[in-house]
Amino acid sequence: MSTTELRPVDSYGYDEDWLEQRLAEYKALAIEELVRRVPTSLPRTTLRDLVLEYPLRPGKGLRPALCMSTCEAFGGRRDSALFSAAAIELYHNAFLVHDDIEDDSLLRRGLPTLHAQYGIPLAINAGDAMNVLTLRALLDNFNVVGVDRTQRIFEEIEWMVLKAVEGQSLELGWVRNAFWDLTEKDYFMMSLKKTGWYTCISPCRIGAIIGGAAPHQINPFNSFGYHLGIAFQIQDDILNLRGEQILYGKERAGDLWEGKRTVMLIHLLNNCNQKERRHLVSILNKRRVKKSASEVAWILDKMDQRGSILHAEEVARRFARRATEIMHTELCFIPESGAKALLRALVDYVVHRKL
Amino acid sequence: MSTTELRPVDSYGYDEDWLEQRLAEYKALAIEELVRRVPTSLPRTTLRDLVLEYPLRPGKGLRPALCMSTCEAFGGRRDSALFSAAAIELYHNAFLVHDDIEDDSLLRRGLPTLHAQYGIPLAINAGDAMNVLTLRALLDNFNVVGVDRTQRIFEEIEWMVLKAVEGQSLELGWVRNAFWDLTEKDYFMMSLKKTGWYTCISPCRIGAIIGGAAPHQINPFNSFGYHLGIAFQIQDDILNLRGEQILYGKERAGDLWEGKRTVMLIHLLNNCNQKERRHLVSILNKRRVKKSASEVAWILDKMDQRGSILHAEEVARRFARRATEIMHTELCFIPESGAKALLRALVDYVVHRKL
Repeated sequence: MSTTELRPVDSYGYDEDWLEQRLAEYKALAIEELVRRVPTSLPRTTLRDLVLEYPLRPGKGLRPALCMSTCEAFGGRRDSALFSAAAIELYHNAFLVHDDIEDDSLLRRGLPTLHAQYGIPLAINAGDAMNVLTLRALLDNFNVVGVDRTQRIFEEIEWMVLKAVEGQSLELGWVRNAFWDLTEKDYFMMSLKKTGWYTCISPCRIGAIIGGAAPHQINPFNSFGYHLGIAFQIQDDILNLRGEQILYGKERAGDLWEGKRTVMLIHLLNNCNQKERRHLVSILNKRRVKKSASEVAWILDKMDQRGSILHAEEVARRFARRATEIMHTELCFIPESGAKALLRALVDYVVHRKL
Repeated sequence: MSTTELRPVDSYGYDEDWLEQRLAEYKALAIEELVRRVPTSLPRTTLRDLVLEYPLRPGKGLRPALCMSTCEAFGGRRDSALFSAAAIELYHNAFLVHDDIEDDSLLRRGLPTLHAQYGIPLAINAGDAMNVLTLRALLDNFNVVGVDRTQRIFEEIEWMVLKAVEGQSLELGWVRNAFWDLTEKDYFMMSLKKTGWYTCISPCRIGAIIGGAAPHQINPFNSFGYHLGIAFQIQDDILNLRGEQILYGKERAGDLWEGKRTVMLIHLLNNCNQKERRHLVSILNKRRVKKSASEVAWILDKMDQRGSILHAEEVARRFARRATEIMHTELCFIPESGAKALLRALVDYVVHRKL
């Protein structure tokens, strides 16, 4: 089977149009708030334009949707979570700006990465600016959700960002040390830290805090978000290999050019013979510019042969099923609502999405 | 006169040994607190070692001294300002890590820059980690100085960091656009933003808040810190040209290799003939690796001939004198104490220091 073919894998447990409309709504709210928060007094061509570049490109808006709908699921008002959702979305974009430099990525959301456009120095600085702007949004929480919840949200954000830099340092360490003796568990641990917290767990926890959830009601989101986050990340990695650039917005198979550790790659490394593995590692250890298109195609081909991508799909669906189970068990105390239905639907969405 | 000769310029208004001992005390406190706050759970070789690298190198500790002594000058306890002083010191080091990448600097405090040692990706990420660790220190303020002051300190920090990234974007924009039509006013404005706030104004303001100062008692520190900060920065730039590498800890004349805009350079640009200016700009616009030692020496020589360094010294002393005046006028309401004497002495120190 060709890796470029996109196919539905299960029957969907949600109405796709409804979900995409809801996602777009939450995203529009968060981005509008985010844009409002970028001071017009910033130097335009060397800072303000750069800060807004990624947020204004097309994106899914998963994080604001998780944050605001979790708040609503606990009976809170969507508006109460708006500043936090905007802060998380801005933080996410800041992380992407630095991540793209660190990985030397070429494309982001269908256009050149920020450092490709403006050079590394201005891009690093823009990422720093984005980080500090999240602080302003979180400080404004004092007036919206009170001292106690503002303080708790800050604690969540601090933990979230710390996990992200820890995860990033693990992954960059693997790259720097040309380390390939990895198991899936290593990947799960890195992925939980690097993206799991800030993509899923923390947005849900912060939404729950704002919605008025008690601490014991918040903790199940750790497991829910962990499973959702891994499912999301694996699907992201699959789309990177499969997706048409025009749809997915990143360089096709950019992850292989960058030598990114994924479930598929770990599966292949552990399911090929010694000679193939040596060849594979020798390609992977080359810098981007030293790799050839035929070498990248060879890896993709081997992944197809060994069922690495099918395996990754299965793992992603397993994690998504577990997230759904948690919603039906540990989180069943949350009363039924449109917001809860959205949270449930998002689980299916992350493994079925095409971009 | 040779630019390498270090000479005392005025009679000192303070006891040098006493001042250096006090600075060392404040620094030791802040660094001890900072180190305590770097979790031992962080991945060691890819993150923790990097986070601690700059803070553990020799440094002056000006920022913690300003923060804690201002707190004491208002009758506060030094300990109450410790978390904030550690946060500011850590923030300063985070800024240096990213700044060194942005400027492609080779040395920092006598040793290779972080990215020269660990590569750009891990160094960017370490800077991000340092930034988030400041958040933890500021959150712990809730338990030490209460909700109101903690909130006000956060507001100060947000402003401080925003100014720094604004200033940095201005300077990087000048580099990117090969822009040399600068006046001293442009330099003062950039320097106020890039380093003035976080080096002088904000440490003093935060110390004053913790010490219990009223808002109208805090505002004179804006002008005090502005003048102190510019004096400090100009002296820093002079030392870069003059200092022996072993003493100063940066590459000798590294600023000329990097093409950094300074008061001396702006003076020279505006005080040479057209032919010299064309030659000067052509050297400055070359990337570091394309410049030759004789070209850099030519610039240094011209600066001597045209009195650019003497001029910069005069400007630094003018700013220092103004800071002293403010201490004697707008800040004269602060009762005499060892802490106040230290603040006064620091003004002389910044323009007389040799490293």
